[in-house]
Amino acid sequence: MTDTDSPLYHVDGELVPADEATVSVDDRGFRYGDAAFETCRAYGGTIFAWDAHVDRLERTCEALSLDHGLSAADLRARIDETLAANDLEDAYVRLSITRGVQPGKLAPRPEVDPTVVVYVKPLPRGGVEGESVWDEPATVRTVETRRIPDAAVPSAAKTHNYLNGILARAELRGTDADEALVRDLDGTVAEGATSNLWFVRDGALYTPTTDGPVLPGITRAIVRELAAEADLRVHEGAYAVGDVRAADEAFLTNRTWELRPIGALDGHAIGGGPITDRLSRLYDERVERTCYE
Amino acid sequence: MTDTDSPLYHVDGELVPADEATVSVDDRGFRYGDAAFETCRAYGGTIFAWDAHVDRLERTCEALSLDHGLSAADLRARIDETLAANDLEDAYVRLSITRGVQPGKLAPRPEVDPTVVVYVKPLPRGGVEGESVWDEPATVRTVETRRIPDAAVPSAAKTHNYLNGILARAELRGTDADEALVRDLDGTVAEGATSNLWFVRDGALYTPTTDGPVLPGITRAIVRELAAEADLRVHEGAYAVGDVRAADEAFLTNRTWELRPIGALDGHAIGGGPITDRLSRLYDERVERTCYE
Repeated sequence: MTDTDSPLYHVDGELVPADEATVSVDDRGFRYGDAAFETCRAYGGTIFAWDAHVDRLERTCEALSLDHGLSAADLRARIDETLAANDLEDAYVRLSITRGVQPGKLAPRPEVDPTVVVYVKPLPRGGVEGESVWDEPATVRTVETRRIPDAAVPSAAKTHNYLNGILARAELRGTDADEALVRDLDGTVAEGATSNLWFVRDGALYTPTTDGPVLPGITRAIVRELAAEADLRVHEGAYAVGDVRAADEAFLTNRTWELRPIGALDGHAIGGGPITDRLSRLYDERVERTCYE
Repeated sequence: MTDTDSPLYHVDGELVPADEATVSVDDRGFRYGDAAFETCRAYGGTIFAWDAHVDRLERTCEALSLDHGLSAADLRARIDETLAANDLEDAYVRLSITRGVQPGKLAPRPEVDPTVVVYVKPLPRGGVEGESVWDEPATVRTVETRRIPDAAVPSAAKTHNYLNGILARAELRGTDADEALVRDLDGTVAEGATSNLWFVRDGALYTPTTDGPVLPGITRAIVRELAAEADLRVHEGAYAVGDVRAADEAFLTNRTWELRPIGALDGHAIGGGPITDRLSRLYDERVERTCYE
């Protein structure tokens, strides 16, 4: 970290103080949100589940027909350089790739000169010795804003078009909630504004299927693996809000929160419990094994 | 216009050469496309239908809970200053207002320090003495990408989340088409990627209703007014692609194109005709009367 509180970001190959890091107002990432991104965690200087991020980024860029031409090694080098320059081991890392500036208007051109931005900020380490980023279980409310269906914008694409999630979160103003539960157009539970949803009933795990408009979270995929290794039953399907409310335990997953229990949904207390705790422990051990050994 | 080819943009109260005009990578307009915009036309130095732009911008900002705190007069002054600095009378003008940089993450805060950007570039004048921006009638293809439903993101909001239109346009690669015809989830015709759709049958005008996921175009509203003044029947309803293909005439409207005939839809020739021509003439006269007298 530099002397000031402003970290260094990596913008188009240059390290620049965050408060001086800019993009052109003509960049399609700004004009249209025409950009892909990944939110990663660095633990002990290592990007956790990097290969999974590379895969998802590739799928996002395919969905956007965004052929940025950069190798995974190049992207990783930019991230590693940024972490080193900030002397950061445990960090939040965001990697954004935009379609850059192009002549013409809305129609995207095949030839891309991408804009690449790496954001970092310190974030406590995970792992069995680590501390949680969140102070308390999540307070969740079901909102009216519905997930964008796959036929309009592919749900598996993680892009700078994030208004749907912002509108969901804006509905929470004036309530005690800090995460929104978003349904699809049919009323089936999809996910949180920035998290995947899980719940437990009679010892089995349930999570909305990615056949619906659900971002395939990387933390979600790891939790699924850990549950299988622990011989826990996992159901991926279509669930109603009432199913979640009636659960024995419920939690949210994302890169930043890792596993975070849902304290209450729509005012009904739920909370974590033995299975949430067990999976959190298994997740911490996975982080430990992957990044600190 | 300056000596170089780069116009001056107006960014947060400062005139800056376009190729040096930037926003912070932490601006929510860049990170999330969390921004409203308007595309305007200046004819003879006057913004055409300014009040309608102010109204729509206000509705967009209400939909986004974006209380930017700027008066219409302030915004207009920035535009006028930009036109004057570039010595432009006939121009494309884009006005963008973002939620700026905020602490925290996705959830928007009520206190906003907005980023305001005015883009300009020369564009031939409209009016009876003017020339068209487009060289030829539009070639249109129906695409698979569907409009985002109102329940996910309000269709009346004109925002920097423009991937839905980009995906529609990306489907046109390798075809001869330059505009996409986008349907809603039920297959009902909605609009073009950047235009509203009109067609003519048996002397009456038809256009998709804004009860569906259709941006309420300002050119659309003016054409509707002009048609009513000319005693033409106008129907706003739910139409199938086949209805458009079977039309006697068809055209697209937006600020830049004004009225642009559809030469062909999905390979079926349609073209303009007497009613399209008449409305184009009436539109030119309206521009003339409003901006040049």
